[in-house]
Amino acid sequence: METINKKPLYNPDGDISLTARRMVNGDTTNLNDFNNLKYEWTSDWYRQAMNNFWIPEEINLAQDKKQYPNLPEAERVAYDKVLSFLIFLDSIQSANLPNVSDYITANEVNLCLHIQTYQECIHSQSYSYMLDSICEPDKRDEILYLYRDDEFLAKRNKYIGDIYNDFQEEKTPHNFLRVLVANYILEGVYFYSGFMFFYNLARNGRMTGSAQQIRYINRDENTHLWLFRNIINELRKEEPSMFTEDLQAEYQAMVKEGAEQEMAWGKYVIGNDIQGLNESMVEDYIKYLANQRAVDIGLEPIYEGHREEPESMKWVSNYSNANMIKTDFFEARSTAYAKSGALVDDL
Amino acid sequence: METINKKPLYNPDGDISLTARRMVNGDTTNLNDFNNLKYEWTSDWYRQAMNNFWIPEEINLAQDKKQYPNLPEAERVAYDKVLSFLIFLDSIQSANLPNVSDYITANEVNLCLHIQTYQECIHSQSYSYMLDSICEPDKRDEILYLYRDDEFLAKRNKYIGDIYNDFQEEKTPHNFLRVLVANYILEGVYFYSGFMFFYNLARNGRMTGSAQQIRYINRDENTHLWLFRNIINELRKEEPSMFTEDLQAEYQAMVKEGAEQEMAWGKYVIGNDIQGLNESMVEDYIKYLANQRAVDIGLEPIYEGHREEPESMKWVSNYSNANMIKTDFFEARSTAYAKSGALVDDL
Repeated sequence: METINKKPLYNPDGDISLTARRMVNGDTTNLNDFNNLKYEWTSDWYRQAMNNFWIPEEINLAQDKKQYPNLPEAERVAYDKVLSFLIFLDSIQSANLPNVSDYITANEVNLCLHIQTYQECIHSQSYSYMLDSICEPDKRDEILYLYRDDEFLAKRNKYIGDIYNDFQEEKTPHNFLRVLVANYILEGVYFYSGFMFFYNLARNGRMTGSAQQIRYINRDENTHLWLFRNIINELRKEEPSMFTEDLQAEYQAMVKEGAEQEMAWGKYVIGNDIQGLNESMVEDYIKYLANQRAVDIGLEPIYEGHREEPESMKWVSNYSNANMIKTDFFEARSTAYAKSGALVDDL
Repeated sequence: METINKKPLYNPDGDISLTARRMVNGDTTNLNDFNNLKYEWTSDWYRQAMNNFWIPEEINLAQDKKQYPNLPEAERVAYDKVLSFLIFLDSIQSANLPNVSDYITANEVNLCLHIQTYQECIHSQSYSYMLDSICEPDKRDEILYLYRDDEFLAKRNKYIGDIYNDFQEEKTPHNFLRVLVANYILEGVYFYSGFMFFYNLARNGRMTGSAQQIRYINRDENTHLWLFRNIINELRKEEPSMFTEDLQAEYQAMVKEGAEQEMAWGKYVIGNDIQGLNESMVEDYIKYLANQRAVDIGLEPIYEGHREEPESMKWVSNYSNANMIKTDFFEARSTAYAKSGALVDDL
């Protein structure tokens, strides 16, 4: 694959046969036909994503508002930093995903990417609601733009931002694959130490509304990870030239770099001052995640051992397991949605 | 405004002050901060769009499946043509909206555009479900790709497709504004004669499941119209050079061209052979809609008179009024959603 082409827009003479459909460089009509799927897993993905619908503002944060100013200093500082990083990640995702779907020529996959983009926006809305609930405008801005004062955070953001910008500036197949792998690491490693931090607060009875928001976000991110893993694995079949030994080594190095950054970040924001967590727990967990992510896209594991979820971190799965959302872990209110019929009548 | 620039992606030094925020050519950081809005109407828009969540497959189409083969010939042919046009419209919207948000530098507006893109995908999913329910695979393909055999439809699709492709090929402010106006006409005029056709079937007791799908789609499209009207009106304030007398005349001519096409289409697909509708009812309604759309974006009305909704078409509002969705006009089943906790456990 020498070049990667932006998908055609209005293209009535495109080839609609399933055998001609390709993840990239295909000749799509852009007519959405979800009865004829080449990538049949998108059907389960769609069903799951629709079932995951949630509304951030329906989760009560009154208790968090009271607790936030009284958190132990180390926890409050970590809360701000972790939240700031998550805000950056979901923001850059919502801005960049359309750049990915611009080059994907399978409409069933673009359906999923458009749903993902929307969900990243809802996550951003969730963070805005959290910030608005727990702190005053000045503090809100401080957390949002923490990268201006925190070099560690600025550097982390820059690593991802540069990979995304590279593809903006030069649309090569190589830069495209780097964006896909960066997405995959972001969804599958970067988010997780943040999630873990919030779940740890919650198991100590603190900031449980925030943690509930994170559980819904986590549930969505699981599907995003699933989506990018599958896109990468389909491309491995369709475009072997993008998975030469050298390129695979490069992708593996990216996963490793992501994991190393995540562990350094864990030391920096969590360290050994947070009740219930310590540096080695975080390190074990990130090594396990990184190995799993590498293997899931056909790469060798990165760290020796670390193939099983660490015993010390089993509680993370208990919190992030979406099946437990049904039991309303942290809150008592009903989780059933009613369709609203109220329409702003100004058209 | 001489040029229009693609929004920056990772841009940590962007200007976050509200006074610097602009609809286009702004210097956004792309950090989503929904607590600081320049365009405050996006807040109501977001709330409405979230409340409008629906799942196409929850509407029962068993009755439609039985009725479809037995529809009077004129109604069945019209059903196919109307549906084919709607499928094209929602498909091209889902593919093109990211090209709009690529140039919008207000994140609160991109939040709305991303939600809209997702909703257009759901509409496509709704059409796929309708086709899958009422007909066999061969017939499904025939309806989907009707433009291949129907020159009238092919020409209609081409008019919109070409405007969208023009901006793909040449990113000028002029082509951008043409895309916005085309979007606005599409959402505010083109969709409506299709909606009207389905509501007319339903008031005669036919294809009521299809009509219920359309009501939910209509409810979403109302918000899309609201969104594009506001984007255009904000740009009118910010970029007066895009609203010179000559350019306004051009936009007005586009609305008129859209309306004329819609009336010709109404004669072609509906004519005088459908129980409950005739050519002059359709014409009156389209003229009324076109005038309203023109006035709403600051243009002069196009057709003399035709400023009130025609008496003969009041029933359309009754069907499209989303408040009546609460009463489950056509169906008996519960409309309350429960969050599903089932997660595909293969990560």
